[in-house]
Amino acid sequence: MNPEMPPLAIDLLIYPEWIIPIEPHGVTLTDHALAINHGIILDLLPVDEASTRYAPKEKICLPGHVLLPGLINLHTHAAMSLLRGYADDLSLDTWLTKHIWPAEAQHVSPDFVHTGTLLACAEMLRGGITTFNDMYFFPAAAAEAVNQSGMRATLGLVVMDHPTNYATDADDYLSKGLAFRDTYKECLNINFSLAPHAPYTVSDKAFEKIGTLSAQLEIPIHTHLHETRHEITESIKKHGIRPLQRLHNLGLLGPQFIAVHAVHLDTTEIDRLKLTGCHVALCPTSNLKLGSGLPPITQFLQHDVNCGLGTDSAASNNRLDIFQEMRLTALLAKGMDEDATALSAHQTLQAATLNGARALGLESQIGSLLPGKAADLCAVRLDDWILQPCFDPASHLVYTAGRNDVTHTWVAGKLKMHDGKPIDIDMQQLLAHIHIWRNRLTA
Amino acid sequence: MNPEMPPLAIDLLIYPEWIIPIEPHGVTLTDHALAINHGIILDLLPVDEASTRYAPKEKICLPGHVLLPGLINLHTHAAMSLLRGYADDLSLDTWLTKHIWPAEAQHVSPDFVHTGTLLACAEMLRGGITTFNDMYFFPAAAAEAVNQSGMRATLGLVVMDHPTNYATDADDYLSKGLAFRDTYKECLNINFSLAPHAPYTVSDKAFEKIGTLSAQLEIPIHTHLHETRHEITESIKKHGIRPLQRLHNLGLLGPQFIAVHAVHLDTTEIDRLKLTGCHVALCPTSNLKLGSGLPPITQFLQHDVNCGLGTDSAASNNRLDIFQEMRLTALLAKGMDEDATALSAHQTLQAATLNGARALGLESQIGSLLPGKAADLCAVRLDDWILQPCFDPASHLVYTAGRNDVTHTWVAGKLKMHDGKPIDIDMQQLLAHIHIWRNRLTA
Repeated sequence: MNPEMPPLAIDLLIYPEWIIPIEPHGVTLTDHALAINHGIILDLLPVDEASTRYAPKEKICLPGHVLLPGLINLHTHAAMSLLRGYADDLSLDTWLTKHIWPAEAQHVSPDFVHTGTLLACAEMLRGGITTFNDMYFFPAAAAEAVNQSGMRATLGLVVMDHPTNYATDADDYLSKGLAFRDTYKECLNINFSLAPHAPYTVSDKAFEKIGTLSAQLEIPIHTHLHETRHEITESIKKHGIRPLQRLHNLGLLGPQFIAVHAVHLDTTEIDRLKLTGCHVALCPTSNLKLGSGLPPITQFLQHDVNCGLGTDSAASNNRLDIFQEMRLTALLAKGMDEDATALSAHQTLQAATLNGARALGLESQIGSLLPGKAADLCAVRLDDWILQPCFDPASHLVYTAGRNDVTHTWVAGKLKMHDGKPIDIDMQQLLAHIHIWRNRLTA
Repeated sequence: MNPEMPPLAIDLLIYPEWIIPIEPHGVTLTDHALAINHGIILDLLPVDEASTRYAPKEKICLPGHVLLPGLINLHTHAAMSLLRGYADDLSLDTWLTKHIWPAEAQHVSPDFVHTGTLLACAEMLRGGITTFNDMYFFPAAAAEAVNQSGMRATLGLVVMDHPTNYATDADDYLSKGLAFRDTYKECLNINFSLAPHAPYTVSDKAFEKIGTLSAQLEIPIHTHLHETRHEITESIKKHGIRPLQRLHNLGLLGPQFIAVHAVHLDTTEIDRLKLTGCHVALCPTSNLKLGSGLPPITQFLQHDVNCGLGTDSAASNNRLDIFQEMRLTALLAKGMDEDATALSAHQTLQAATLNGARALGLESQIGSLLPGKAADLCAVRLDDWILQPCFDPASHLVYTAGRNDVTHTWVAGKLKMHDGKPIDIDMQQLLAHIHIWRNRLTA
């Protein structure tokens, strides 16, 4: 650096106590600052250099805080936050057929999706989540909520064979999804996936179309897969093969494929996910709460399958909280393997950030603090008395802190949550709408 | 009630939105109030009757809040909160022999125990915990911290064969423990247990003395048991039998016996716990984090073994947070059994309250909101926007809310935590002491 060069004018310089950039892996920096300009990470550099090199419009000092990439929720049905705790402690079948599906049939509409998604965005921003991967009906209503909140989202073009309030059959779902994509494709914060609901609700024919479209449009395929033993048994009855084999035969597996849940897999199947370059969205709270089973976390790790973390919906979680998923994933990995070294805190943080970005095909844009990526960030305060003492910020993020310790969430360099409040969402109005929906749902 | 009787002067009347009294089981009351006098629950009655029957000195209205018994932490080493996150992601052996034990050998003293226990009390009160069951060295220093905080605790008279900073051999531990008990036995908020550390650190001879003392003094025995497979293998090598069988042969099992962890048990052993009336302190976070394994939660339930919940220490958790243990216990039970109906929200709430009281022999005093019991309570705010909508307060307590939603904690009718702050603890002074200890521990 030329010492005579004048400092460069930039938008924002953040001075936290610690920075965990995720790339390189396992690193916790002190005495470093993050420089941001035009929504992009410009530099990550020592504090003394930062002060001479950059002249920021805004400077934020965060003593006692750790700065890390925004968390990525790799699987949710955001609108279902209106069904948070609507029915619990029930078998999956009773839960779905007696409670969730009837409620959806009666109530799901663009307004339901807008209000539910906005609540989900508020909750996710509160907990440091900057990007989510969604699958639900009426995605245009979800996109409006996403845009209001200022988040980044990959919205699924949902496909099923059976009719709902949203569409009548697979072709109708697809054409509505494609029309939705056409409307929103200029929104830089919105990406798209093809979202066939699950092997048991989508025909071979529809899956084939989805495979073709995914290749043409270069967008991911996002589907529930091997969530329960029942799903596998039924597939063998109906198709003579397990769901993963069926999707493989249909040519769907590949680096654009995100398998959600993946609870019940044999070693050959885990190998197949790796060989084809598929990604997994682990949703441990949902798998446990619905009685689906325990996901084979460390086997994915051993086979080098890329795994991100998802909350699933607030109807089966009941929080859209990646801190809970980080803690639970790390704990389950250790407990199931009877090995306390399984899934370290840094590996868990990577699952909640970079791995999610990889799965969404957005690795070049988000998921770590490399210069050139979008400034999607969260700051977590670790000096609250209840978290003391703190010896290692990475360990504290996974095992000790929680979403309520997040103080700032930025998307593309813009502050979208501070002091516990989403900045661009009118919370009073939102709460009034939630109240109306709660009354309708209990009427 | 005689309508002409003047209202009775009492200390406190609380009007929450909901009351979950734990006894009777599975009940959530609305439009009820809790009447408290001289630290004791006097009445639980409909709101309109409460207003005419009682003239309280203080009236607290809590719209949007649920009131329930104070939570009971059935196993911890409170002082180890100073070692929160001191070493993580390590095998149990490395963790203990290279990190925890050396740190303890160098640092544990009455001052360490006082500061660590006071921090633990502050954290536990913050999260609605009113009683904890402790096992650590220098219990008089812990008792001082407990008295400062205003909590209720059962403090263990710890016993091991090997020397520590606290005592030299089993007899020395016992005599120090008994002297401690003599000093504090008039403190109504302090109870005692005999706390042999574990079968692998305590000889038959010491266990026999402990059995005799427990019967004479009528106090519980609190010990780690069947935490790891290794412990069982070593017992077979050394004693020719599994630890539980050994303790049975020594006459220790009975309704005064609390088995902590109990991760690895066969059906006969679970039966034996039931037949002898033993209690279990489930510590699921610690069992997972240390790679010990998955505790057989629903098998205990099926065999009707009384199970409470414990956090273990902040060195292996790393939160003293019974909300996390409730959530994890309910989720694990469902996931391990692949049955979403396993361990309902109400059953989980009972484990965190009444079952803990039973295990400690304090069922007549705490653990539910029956009139005549101590007014050990917590109030949890469920109307924060991030918890909306709320359909069922019991479900919300277990699956959605967290310790940061606790607004009030009372012990014996006295408010001991409000607005996130322990009332009787000088937090500034405590934080200064923690800071000194943190520096010593990293020196």
